[in-house]
Amino acid sequence: MPHSPCSDVTQREPESQCDNLGFARVDLARLRRQGVPEVVYGAGKTGEQIAAILESLRDHGQTPALVTRIDSAKAATVSAAMGNSFEYFPDARLGRLGSPRAPDGHGPIVIAAAGTSDIHVAEEAALTAETLGNEVKRLYDIGVAGLHRLIACADDLSSASVVVAVAGMEGALASVVGGLVSCPVVAVPTSVGYGASFGGVSALLAMLNSCAAGVSVVNIDNGFGAGFLAHRINHTGIRK
Amino acid sequence: MPHSPCSDVTQREPESQCDNLGFARVDLARLRRQGVPEVVYGAGKTGEQIAAILESLRDHGQTPALVTRIDSAKAATVSAAMGNSFEYFPDARLGRLGSPRAPDGHGPIVIAAAGTSDIHVAEEAALTAETLGNEVKRLYDIGVAGLHRLIACADDLSSASVVVAVAGMEGALASVVGGLVSCPVVAVPTSVGYGASFGGVSALLAMLNSCAAGVSVVNIDNGFGAGFLAHRINHTGIRK
Amino acid sequence: MPHSPCSDVTQREPESQCDNLGFARVDLARLRRQGVPEVVYGAGKTGEQIAAILESLRDHGQTPALVTRIDSAKAATVSAAMGNSFEYFPDARLGRLGSPRAPDGHGPIVIAAAGTSDIHVAEEAALTAETLGNEVKRLYDIGVAGLHRLIACADDLSSASVVVAVAGMEGALASVVGGLVSCPVVAVPTSVGYGASFGGVSALLAMLNSCAAGVSVVNIDNGFGAGFLAHRINHTGIRK
Amino acid sequence: MPHSPCSDVTQREPESQCDNLGFARVDLARLRRQGVPEVVYGAGKTGEQIAAILESLRDHGQTPALVTRIDSAKAATVSAAMGNSFEYFPDARLGRLGSPRAPDGHGPIVIAAAGTSDIHVAEEAALTAETLGNEVKRLYDIGVAGLHRLIACADDLSSASVVVAVAGMEGALASVVGGLVSCPVVAVPTSVGYGASFGGVSALLAMLNSCAAGVSVVNIDNGFGAGFLAHRINHTGIRK
Amino acid sequence: MPHSPCSDVTQREPESQCDNLGFARVDLARLRRQGVPEVVYGAGKTGEQIAAILESLRDHGQTPALVTRIDSAKAATVSAAMGNSFEYFPDARLGRLGSPRAPDGHGPIVIAAAGTSDIHVAEEAALTAETLGNEVKRLYDIGVAGLHRLIACADDLSSASVVVAVAGMEGALASVVGGLVSCPVVAVPTSVGYGASFGGVSALLAMLNSCAAGVSVVNIDNGFGAGFLAHRINHTGIRK
Amino acid sequence: MPHSPCSDVTQREPESQCDNLGFARVDLARLRRQGVPEVVYGAGKTGEQIAAILESLRDHGQTPALVTRIDSAKAATVSAAMGNSFEYFPDARLGRLGSPRAPDGHGPIVIAAAGTSDIHVAEEAALTAETLGNEVKRLYDIGVAGLHRLIACADDLSSASVVVAVAGMEGALASVVGGLVSCPVVAVPTSVGYGASFGGVSALLAMLNSCAAGVSVVNIDNGFGAGFLAHRINHTGIRK
Amino acid sequence: MPHSPCSDVTQREPESQCDNLGFARVDLARLRRQGVPEVVYGAGKTGEQIAAILESLRDHGQTPALVTRIDSAKAATVSAAMGNSFEYFPDARLGRLGSPRAPDGHGPIVIAAAGTSDIHVAEEAALTAETLGNEVKRLYDIGVAGLHRLIACADDLSSASVVVAVAGMEGALASVVGGLVSCPVVAVPTSVGYGASFGGVSALLAMLNSCAAGVSVVNIDNGFGAGFLAHRINHTGIRK
Amino acid sequence: MPHSPCSDVTQREPESQCDNLGFARVDLARLRRQGVPEVVYGAGKTGEQIAAILESLRDHGQTPALVTRIDSAKAATVSAAMGNSFEYFPDARLGRLGSPRAPDGHGPIVIAAAGTSDIHVAEEAALTAETLGNEVKRLYDIGVAGLHRLIACADDLSSASVVVAVAGMEGALASVVGGLVSCPVVAVPTSVGYGASFGGVSALLAMLNSCAAGVSVVNIDNGFGAGFLAHRINHTGIRK
Repeated sequence: MPHSPCSDVTQREPESQCDNLGFARVDLARLRRQGVPEVVYGAGKTGEQIAAILESLRDHGQTPALVTRIDSAKAATVSAAMGNSFEYFPDARLGRLGSPRAPDGHGPIVIAAAGTSDIHVAEEAALTAETLGNEVKRLYDIGVAGLHRLIACADDLSSASVVVAVAGMEGALASVVGGLVSCPVVAVPTSVGYGASFGGVSALLAMLNSCAAGVSVVNIDNGFGAGFLAHRINHTGIRK
Repeated sequence: MPHSPCSDVTQREPESQCDNLGFARVDLARLRRQGVPEVVYGAGKTGEQIAAILESLRDHGQTPALVTRIDSAKAATVSAAMGNSFEYFPDARLGRLGSPRAPDGHGPIVIAAAGTSDIHVAEEAALTAETLGNEVKRLYDIGVAGLHRLIACADDLSSASVVVAVAGMEGALASVVGGLVSCPVVAVPTSVGYGASFGGVSALLAMLNSCAAGVSVVNIDNGFGAGFLAHRINHTGIRK
Repeated sequence: MPHSPCSDVTQREPESQCDNLGFARVDLARLRRQGVPEVVYGAGKTGEQIAAILESLRDHGQTPALVTRIDSAKAATVSAAMGNSFEYFPDARLGRLGSPRAPDGHGPIVIAAAGTSDIHVAEEAALTAETLGNEVKRLYDIGVAGLHRLIACADDLSSASVVVAVAGMEGALASVVGGLVSCPVVAVPTSVGYGASFGGVSALLAMLNSCAAGVSVVNIDNGFGAGFLAHRINHTGIRK
Repeated sequence: MPHSPCSDVTQREPESQCDNLGFARVDLARLRRQGVPEVVYGAGKTGEQIAAILESLRDHGQTPALVTRIDSAKAATVSAAMGNSFEYFPDARLGRLGSPRAPDGHGPIVIAAAGTSDIHVAEEAALTAETLGNEVKRLYDIGVAGLHRLIACADDLSSASVVVAVAGMEGALASVVGGLVSCPVVAVPTSVGYGASFGGVSALLAMLNSCAAGVSVVNIDNGFGAGFLAHRINHTGIRK
Repeated sequence: MPHSPCSDVTQREPESQCDNLGFARVDLARLRRQGVPEVVYGAGKTGEQIAAILESLRDHGQTPALVTRIDSAKAATVSAAMGNSFEYFPDARLGRLGSPRAPDGHGPIVIAAAGTSDIHVAEEAALTAETLGNEVKRLYDIGVAGLHRLIACADDLSSASVVVAVAGMEGALASVVGGLVSCPVVAVPTSVGYGASFGGVSALLAMLNSCAAGVSVVNIDNGFGAGFLAHRINHTGIRK
Repeated sequence: MPHSPCSDVTQREPESQCDNLGFARVDLARLRRQGVPEVVYGAGKTGEQIAAILESLRDHGQTPALVTRIDSAKAATVSAAMGNSFEYFPDARLGRLGSPRAPDGHGPIVIAAAGTSDIHVAEEAALTAETLGNEVKRLYDIGVAGLHRLIACADDLSSASVVVAVAGMEGALASVVGGLVSCPVVAVPTSVGYGASFGGVSALLAMLNSCAAGVSVVNIDNGFGAGFLAHRINHTGIRK
Repeated sequence: MPHSPCSDVTQREPESQCDNLGFARVDLARLRRQGVPEVVYGAGKTGEQIAAILESLRDHGQTPALVTRIDSAKAATVSAAMGNSFEYFPDARLGRLGSPRAPDGHGPIVIAAAGTSDIHVAEEAALTAETLGNEVKRLYDIGVAGLHRLIACADDLSSASVVVAVAGMEGALASVVGGLVSCPVVAVPTSVGYGASFGGVSALLAMLNSCAAGVSVVNIDNGFGAGFLAHRINHTGIRK
Repeated sequence: MPHSPCSDVTQREPESQCDNLGFARVDLARLRRQGVPEVVYGAGKTGEQIAAILESLRDHGQTPALVTRIDSAKAATVSAAMGNSFEYFPDARLGRLGSPRAPDGHGPIVIAAAGTSDIHVAEEAALTAETLGNEVKRLYDIGVAGLHRLIACADDLSSASVVVAVAGMEGALASVVGGLVSCPVVAVPTSVGYGASFGGVSALLAMLNSCAAGVSVVNIDNGFGAGFLAHRINHTGIRK
């Protein structure tokens, strides 16, 4: 693929560091530096651009590689270019090049989701963590309005190295889970809701103000970020 | 309908508590615990998912059951699956499985709406309250800019056990009604308006700041929540 | 006390309706119309003004009368003018003229508070409800981060005709309580917290977005409004 | 008083247009151009600066002159410098140099205020309008929660050429008055309230979204602006 | 046309006050009470509902009648029902039933618009004012970035009884015009802009904070409100 | 093309100052006064209106002329009217009439963009600066998460007279670049991101709070404004 | 110390779970359930209340115990009551009862702070982590505007199991650090800044939108939360 | 002065790059790298800390050095430590060590301020620019409500290499000046105003949305940043 002319400056980074495609500089040092290849943010890129970046990653042995926020049309373009090694998960709007790593973390990562509508974000987190080499347990539709459903899952929650708590609306799941477990909790607010949920802001604020210690927060609907961070936490001391 | 594989954890809750469909855990204890079956939030679920949950509720005798924020396409899917026992109210975007209960509350619930554009929210409240066993009186288009229209309804307002006040724009109806009646007022801000109405935020804030005591507020456009709460208030001491 | 000259218009309301003090028109019809005398909002009034209004209420037999948001300095001024019949509650910043009514509602009102810092708002609600004729149970420091404390109070919660849920920070108490009880829940967000709690906005938004049905919300720190509304709900069908 | 050296540029405007004091350029053309002398915004100026500007206005025959948002300490400084011709109104935080003009507008301006706490803003409007040559009627404490108090003032409202509606909290007074009268209504939101009143924002938004036509809005607590605009409206066609 | 069944309460207002269509209570007293018939807010109503309301107004002699925020599809429905007496102005999204009144105000109303993109809001104001009986002068594309264009219009601005200043983006036009004229200025923020214009909020805030006295503000894109208010101001003392 | 009748006021500006097209007053003095012809804001204008303005500019020798925020459909209309002299850049949504000026500034302008999705804004800046007579260097996809890519560009950054830093999400590029260079930095926040990026607000706020001195900010996605300002800075002392 | 009468409900929790002091229910199960005793939030409690809670914790062997957001006056009260075992750290507004645990985590926790003004928040994080049994390295004043200072710390950053990144203003430190390390990063926005920093909101938003994966965020100024979470992460798989 | 123990990491940066004081790492490379020594942000530092940093700068020949946002008490502490070489400007809350550089830029920098209350921000800009080697002209109190005052300054504005436009309230000065000049305009919103000025946000938004090209914006009240940037612009091509 010819490089775009939009970057005037010639490729002066060392070959092993970066592949300058003009519209993108693929960070080839990411795998060595951070243990995980560069992840491609699919929104705002064309299918062709995504494919070119994945090719570069594949050619430099940087797999499994993930593409986030890629819709089905772009995924079809990428599939046509990359063949079978590219897999697409429509619920999670996630693409993956190459096979997941074998799980080698401290323990299972639990993905807890408050409602059915939160599942697509939860799946983005789950698939990300699985791809990077983690066992994942899914606990879906355990919102706090039916507390007995949540309490029935107490053993699964206790078994986790990390819990990812996914919730929209009032986002209370993170606080309640945070009070039950002794491991880190990564809270993901979702845009599920209407009116004064303000596209996830209410859940975000609730999670930032959690009265339970040990809870931290990622961006609204950022299932990928939560899964990635959970992976890192689950490999603390195992590196990388 | 086969259960989704997305929840890894097997069904360990007692049969009578919860039906785990994978994508949803139907709360079968809700009727016993709270006097009303679980209400299905239709946004973010497919028609097939909604039908599966309603089947579960029907099979466990948990009717009348409500589905909120369901559009006509999903409603058609549900109707095809459930037959005549499912009724759809397009103005209110509400679906109902089973017959309404007979009215047995303290008195009538009055649903007051400021303008014609607020009617779909008002109807969601009215139908919810009627389904759960309440007499409902509708007073529509009685906004405060034509005060004589509101004052002409004074007797109806006085007869209420609860008033649900539905208004967009500046939301002043709640305060004016709150000053006229001696029963609880449930205020519902609507997203009717433009510009600095901010999708209902102006009405929401006005209602939260009502100078009339005895007014409380639910989420923007949350007709269901208002109707449900009005039902509960209207059954105080009658339980449940 | 001489009437302020700042209102140019002479007193044309019928004697029994209103007492025009110039700076205030005391609403003498409130007791008859709404079952409760006018409540004095203390902020923005001088101690002298508050005393004058209370005098007017007392002279027209409109007690017990409440003054909200009155600081201790103003309270001292009022006490000096009114004598023993005026009682001041510093925690709740509440003043009361006359004795509380005997409890005659459907059942107890439970005031649940998430943390110690929320108690002053909770007390404002509790004292308001007690004054107007309700039995009140206080359940304090039962925030969701220590769920067992909340669950240990399940019987008290179940016994309530109305629950007032008071919480700052992420305000999750309202949702968790709302999922446990079958009576109306009045949620009061408090300004307890820091940073992204935005003076109670996070708790307010969480409560408006509660996934539990049957929850409505009053203004931030509005303990009075919650206690007043709980009183009204607890007297539904008993009127007034 | 020596001129501040902070303005490097010498006084090149024609004498009759502007008096350059260094820290301020007194607009001497304002009276001729707009019918009213420049009004001094007292916040952010020292008492000495205010006195110097007033001296300049007096020396050029530009009275009555107003100073807004001036606290009592600065007012004392100004009084000491200017003598008896300067009058201070502490409730309205307003200072005035020279005598009010005789009323010569189309009719009375009615200043309606929702509550006692709104009076200081209402007085700023009232005194401004009186100074500029208008008859003013004050209707205070006629908030919408006691509608009969407002309706009792219907004749006074009908007699107005302009109504200034002053209210905090939910700001509903503007809409209700706007529905009753056929003259222009100038709405002034006040910062009276707490919690979700956000320092007057809730009232401001409510007034901007008024369902009554003929209502416009000035800044929060801007009694001066409302009084000034009411004066202009009341002199339409009389000019100036 | 049969009345909608959605309003349960029968028509108890006096015939001359209100025509209860079920989905709307047409305020027939508006013309007598406020000098102008009820104006129909077209958004959120169907074409059929709008036509029914206009019929009611026509049958009671309440013309010229205006419909705001009506799109071309609804306008076609109304035209089909009402015939030639209904006129549609697509730029302004305004419909009018009946002929404009003859101009009888104090003087011309000037509609000043900052840019070409603001014209549809400006036209809504202009047509409203013309319909209600005012001479209107249009001054378009005189934004402050080309000050000489604005200054070239100084004579037209000076001749006005009222100026309506329409601007998006930074909304500075209102302040600059406010400093040049001695009549009331009605400022209309528009949603023209992008990014930090926030759909007109930046212009709205600028106009509320205008350093020029005599400026008041209506809602974003509320050309109708501005034209209506300008009409009222232009008829002060002429009534009604 | 006939002039629109929507501006009632006849063309009283001197011929050389302004061409009044009715819907627009083309500012013909701009080139002389500010060194650059008026730039046409394409959003909210029709293709026909844009073409008419460009014709006026061309007829008065005011080229090269730019049209911003013009979509491809409008561009086609303009092309049909103007012929080959009009060029359209779809990535940047920019149109240009006439040839770019020869570069004559102090040095190169560097356009640095954080990610691939920011390129369309970066290109708008780059093309604007090139058109007005500047050498431009593009450095794309050098976001701070891969610092080595940014540091590899240090020489290019040092060579700049001005750097335009384009970034969405957290907008950190501006601060990091600002700490590396000694020339002015113009920061352009973009709407790239999701959730709590709030359409570019997060990047905007970050850039306004930059701890690096010498950074200023333009509106979200305002590539044109940044390119224009960079041009002005690059011609300081060369004028104009 | 006598128990406050404000909680009406007698102590029905099992002795080992909770100590009901009336104003507070000390969670004695926290140590067993979550590995760390309850942490006392000092804001909104009196010195006496804090001392009573600490006594309860000490009497049940729950040390080391932390008090956050305690000012020096309250700390003096607590010191007087508790003696030498209570230590106060004024910079961090932190109190500690009992000795820190010996470090037993996976590796060092690095606390990186952007500026001198951020140190009090950084110290709260550092002391919290040290108390709970972690080695802590402090890297202060390494903001991104002087990138070489940050890069000079690369080895220290690489050695960390967890990095806590503390920054106000534009909060870019989190993203830059996140791009350099392969361990989890806990970002703490601080309220350092002015104007559009909005008390830490700008830094918060920047951190939530970090383009570097592996970053999560806690509340503004929440040094305690960050230190606590870093402790948990550093003990993943070591439990507890 | 002994170094604070709060930074555990020993001084590994090269001597010439950085002086690690523990609480601060003085960036000694700033002068060489960026042409201006590090500027000390005084808020959040003690007088002692400021003095220590200034000592370090002086000892390494890095003067003139500036301290921003330093109150008079801290300034006194610094003066006592540093002697006569430290000068304090209370209006601008600015401290300076060493003499200003001789002016050597392209031309004068004009500092235009809208009102008297904006002068302290304007002075911070003016003194910063003078210190760094620029001729400065001050034009104060030329707000747009008195346009003739602004137009009277047209020649001074035209003579500028850069204009710094300082305004609060509606911030219109930036747009009007931007339309008059052909040099870069740096806009500084100030927190002058009340109500809906939101501490400078309204002015900030107006300036970001300026319809005049060539305007960029710095943080609210950031006079220093504007003066610094103006200096950089005024030295474009002169470097450094």
